[in-house]
Amino acid sequence: MLILVLLVSSAMPSHHKPCKQLVLYMHDILYNGTNAANATSAIVAAPEGYNLTTLAGTNGFGDVVVFNDPITLDNNLHSKPVGHAQGLYAYDSNVTLSVWFGFTFYLNSTEHQGTINFIGADPIPLKTRDISVVGGTGDFFMARGIATIATDAIEGLTYFRIRVVVKLFECW
Amino acid sequence: MLILVLLVSSAMPSHHKPCKQLVLYMHDILYNGTNAANATSAIVAAPEGYNLTTLAGTNGFGDVVVFNDPITLDNNLHSKPVGHAQGLYAYDSNVTLSVWFGFTFYLNSTEHQGTINFIGADPIPLKTRDISVVGGTGDFFMARGIATIATDAIEGLTYFRIRVVVKLFECW
Amino acid sequence: MLILVLLVSSAMPSHHKPCKQLVLYMHDILYNGTNAANATSAIVAAPEGYNLTTLAGTNGFGDVVVFNDPITLDNNLHSKPVGHAQGLYAYDSNVTLSVWFGFTFYLNSTEHQGTINFIGADPIPLKTRDISVVGGTGDFFMARGIATIATDAIEGLTYFRIRVVVKLFECW
Repeated sequence: MLILVLLVSSAMPSHHKPCKQLVLYMHDILYNGTNAANATSAIVAAPEGYNLTTLAGTNGFGDVVVFNDPITLDNNLHSKPVGHAQGLYAYDSNVTLSVWFGFTFYLNSTEHQGTINFIGADPIPLKTRDISVVGGTGDFFMARGIATIATDAIEGLTYFRIRVVVKLFECW
Repeated sequence: MLILVLLVSSAMPSHHKPCKQLVLYMHDILYNGTNAANATSAIVAAPEGYNLTTLAGTNGFGDVVVFNDPITLDNNLHSKPVGHAQGLYAYDSNVTLSVWFGFTFYLNSTEHQGTINFIGADPIPLKTRDISVVGGTGDFFMARGIATIATDAIEGLTYFRIRVVVKLFECW
Repeated sequence: MLILVLLVSSAMPSHHKPCKQLVLYMHDILYNGTNAANATSAIVAAPEGYNLTTLAGTNGFGDVVVFNDPITLDNNLHSKPVGHAQGLYAYDSNVTLSVWFGFTFYLNSTEHQGTINFIGADPIPLKTRDISVVGGTGDFFMARGIATIATDAIEGLTYFRIRVVVKLFECW
């Protein structure tokens, strides 16, 4: 199965050039019952028998997390944010770490003003995963494309950082 | 921060003309434990320590609401609905009122038959906010565009009305 | 109301030809408290007063379900899956069976490698319903279109099967 999965990631056509590309980092600190001051996300739904401060079972199947994660230009959590990633993810598998994402980049810096909207599946163990850019507003008015995401760091159960390469193929 | 936020709303390009535009109102009556007969939405998930009949904390962070709101052509809750707005929103911030929206306009009147699908972030305190129209069916087959939304009324904790200006820039 | 609803389904323009079409089946086995070994989906959120092992009230209003359903080429649950449908649906009406869908087809077979992303409303009692294809990756890079879905089988409260006709009108 791993082999087939790798075929998926390599199947992305390479003959199209993005009309715009951004590299951004999002930082997710999950609420664990004791870190309310720092947390940027929280489990808000879980399957029967599980609580809201630890992932359900082995792979979190059924947990829904709402988040508002700072976005930075580099991989440093303490860099000045250029915006926030807002939305939700749901752990959708009981055999592997996998989430379904629906979220928005709300960018608000001297360089970029506007929103980028994403949905897609994220099979976390893969080195890189592609999700869809389904629309945008402001500087990203009517944008479409894909985003290639990679887990850039993971520290215990409460912190992960994702490197997001936004590649737009429709720019207005 | 407010200044930056205003820049975002003004960054929307004005040189494109919509191929179709609709102005509609959606009415949301949140279930509060006693208004089951009238409610059009309900909190169905909340972070640890919060219940499903009042917003969590100051800004509702983590609450997920499922809704089926009537859509009308004017701002009167009691006007004949032309369809329903169906989907969910999640309060995604603990420092301001902000929700992430995923929903569908299901229009069903003599004038319009079809669906319009939206996703986006809604920073509620702003006068207007832009979200994405990511697709459509029926009369709105393959539509893309943006929707500019504004809070048209808010009454206590259970009723709000949103004015939605749907602007399509791809019409088939 | 039924008449108006039928108008909606027939309003879909027929003069566009898809550039790609796929017919697939997704199989959903809902966790009911005793079928953990087979279940492919679980209720993870419900309105006040309802549990996570049975649908809320008459039409499930407010229940949110996370799923990871096998996808097959024919209507046999036991056929070899060609991928998985991952995401969530929320029951969004208290007067009829209706859900709001956000999900991804993750296809992984010798024939297709890539993802297709969907959102839309699903008024279940209708014979067929149209939702939006809002993006894709891999073999479905930048895809847009609609999907016509139909309930192909429903067995008690825990199994249903949906026939999904994916019709792409933008192919890259």
